[in-house]
Amino acid sequence: MEHILILGGDGYLGWPTAMYFSSRGYAVTVVDNNFRRNVGKEIDVTMLYEVPNLIERANIWYEKTGYEIKVVIGDLSVPKQMRSLFDGSLEYDWATNKDFTGIADTVIHFAEQPSAPYSMMNFTTSNLTLINNITVTNNLIYAVKDYAPKTHIIKLGTMGEYGTPNIDIEEGWLDITHKGRKDKFLYPRQASSIYHTSKIMDTDLLWFGVRTWDLKVTDLMQGPVYGIDTDESIVDERLRTFFNYDEIFGTILNRFIVQAVVGYPLTVYGSGGQTRGYLNIKDTLQCIFAATKKPAKQGELRIFNQIVETFSVIELAELTKEAGRLIGYDVEIKNIDNPRKEKENHYYNPTYQGLFNLGVKPNLLTDKIIGKIFKVALKYKKNIREEIIFRGVKW
Amino acid sequence: MEHILILGGDGYLGWPTAMYFSSRGYAVTVVDNNFRRNVGKEIDVTMLYEVPNLIERANIWYEKTGYEIKVVIGDLSVPKQMRSLFDGSLEYDWATNKDFTGIADTVIHFAEQPSAPYSMMNFTTSNLTLINNITVTNNLIYAVKDYAPKTHIIKLGTMGEYGTPNIDIEEGWLDITHKGRKDKFLYPRQASSIYHTSKIMDTDLLWFGVRTWDLKVTDLMQGPVYGIDTDESIVDERLRTFFNYDEIFGTILNRFIVQAVVGYPLTVYGSGGQTRGYLNIKDTLQCIFAATKKPAKQGELRIFNQIVETFSVIELAELTKEAGRLIGYDVEIKNIDNPRKEKENHYYNPTYQGLFNLGVKPNLLTDKIIGKIFKVALKYKKNIREEIIFRGVKW
Repeated sequence: MEHILILGGDGYLGWPTAMYFSSRGYAVTVVDNNFRRNVGKEIDVTMLYEVPNLIERANIWYEKTGYEIKVVIGDLSVPKQMRSLFDGSLEYDWATNKDFTGIADTVIHFAEQPSAPYSMMNFTTSNLTLINNITVTNNLIYAVKDYAPKTHIIKLGTMGEYGTPNIDIEEGWLDITHKGRKDKFLYPRQASSIYHTSKIMDTDLLWFGVRTWDLKVTDLMQGPVYGIDTDESIVDERLRTFFNYDEIFGTILNRFIVQAVVGYPLTVYGSGGQTRGYLNIKDTLQCIFAATKKPAKQGELRIFNQIVETFSVIELAELTKEAGRLIGYDVEIKNIDNPRKEKENHYYNPTYQGLFNLGVKPNLLTDKIIGKIFKVALKYKKNIREEIIFRGVKW
Repeated sequence: MEHILILGGDGYLGWPTAMYFSSRGYAVTVVDNNFRRNVGKEIDVTMLYEVPNLIERANIWYEKTGYEIKVVIGDLSVPKQMRSLFDGSLEYDWATNKDFTGIADTVIHFAEQPSAPYSMMNFTTSNLTLINNITVTNNLIYAVKDYAPKTHIIKLGTMGEYGTPNIDIEEGWLDITHKGRKDKFLYPRQASSIYHTSKIMDTDLLWFGVRTWDLKVTDLMQGPVYGIDTDESIVDERLRTFFNYDEIFGTILNRFIVQAVVGYPLTVYGSGGQTRGYLNIKDTLQCIFAATKKPAKQGELRIFNQIVETFSVIELAELTKEAGRLIGYDVEIKNIDNPRKEKENHYYNPTYQGLFNLGVKPNLLTDKIIGKIFKVALKYKKNIREEIIFRGVKW
């Protein structure tokens, strides 16, 4: 039985990933420090619906499916916590996974502060983002190098590392010819928030680990994800992943749909020409699974751009408006002063063929998919607090 | 009177920089947390001679010259400490600098863990290096943005950020043409230690600060520095800067000379073909002074390569051997297994014209200069502990 260790297993993507692998017969361990739950209280944002805690979710999952997911609560920015996952000091006593050896075949690293606006609130949140994300990644590199050099590291990066360059975005690497000589480099990156900059730093650390200690690493440059339900979560509503609709932790399409449901005009920053690559949460799971099935080689930093199509912000707003119209909603779009420093009209031509080559079949965005998210938002409409949708974190 | 704030003012370069500006009539404040002194005790390395503490040095400097240097002891990775330097909360009561306004015209940032081998000792020193260097730089960016946006930031970077690419190294930036389109990027960087990687991250943060908040920044990509005495330190021997000759904190030429003096064969790692750009400590001071006199523009990240000539390790060993021979020493060179993961034979062609264009007149390395360092090493020969010269920190 293959063993999957998921760092940040309580998060928007971490938990669905855990269920996905668990339902396919993998031994799964999830680790989290409850950051995403605690930070919501700190900055007074609530989710669309309450989500049982990680231990409760694992229990519900076991009751419904008979699969066990092992839960570890811990802060992975503390080296000892991270190292205990690889040095054999954790006790594993799963009834169903007797052949578990203590060393994960694959570790999937989501254990990061994941919000750009949160990273830009003030110097405290900026430092927290940098320190947490870099320290967790560095601790992972050292633990794997010291105890589990054959474990495949899958890291969630972000397309935001590239920014919006005026040349085509390749998958991680760029061959450069300069004054008649050639070399190959990590694609030059410049990000538009401290959060995205911390992910550039993660990639630099992983590349250092690969060059220096022959680690095997896949870095997935992911675009913004939308959606809620996955094939596993439909077993029980309590297994649904987090749904934030606020400006800080809500991703754009999920947030737009909640705004549409409560008649809050869709907040398009500036002209809305900002173009990015997007994907359905189901495709995130497919991509990670494909990368696990066909791992990077020892001594390789393999980079994929994890998106399936591109939209501008105004296009997403129009799509939401149209999907709303089909089910009887009159959705308003409102262009507001852009609170962020970013280009509103820019070239954007990313390559994203690598994961398709591994067999990923994209779920493209449709009215029907938007309609399904509408339904969930409608069901919990009474929970929606309009005052947390937009506060204008500015940079 | 212009005011210069020197972060890391107790270090090998920080203190000579403080005296250099002070002797030219600038109001100078130095800040340090004594890291370089304390870490020596932790890892049991001692310097060639004892150096009075920072407050004592400032007192000696005042006695000898009549110039005051204001001393602040504090840890700049703590945001409050950093911010207190810019928000007017520090009390300034210098007898001689009555017109001091509380806001520095220029801040020179040396406040980093500066040793590559230290950063590679273990995961604790690796994390310390990353967290200290990134947090101090981020705290500086936020403090300057919030309180002193017109203050010119001069940051000591390192040529090591570039690594050893197979194309010419430009001064910080590279124009890239790709599939018929063009853009300009920070020169692609990949470093050979966690320390050097932390400096890449610093540059990324500074570039983010410049793009987002129009800061004015000069990033000096410096090569290894050699030398001890400067025109200011010769006033009194107690004003001499730190001299480390161990593998962790000793820079290469200084270390070779101490090895020569005690008859310890010069430890050349591998074939010794590793080529880097070097400069005399006096040229560091000239370069920083030139950058201060002609600051970056608001909203500009200006990058200079701060070296004056290049040598391979074996060339430096041969130069030391020859300079030793001239004063009667029979110096032996010994190639040892390279404890580091680095290329021993590589292309290396950096540009370094920018600082010369600002008027820097290089002090090139000569037998005479090496001979002077020999004299200092000889004077303190009785203090030299051979067992700390090489321990083989490996990566």
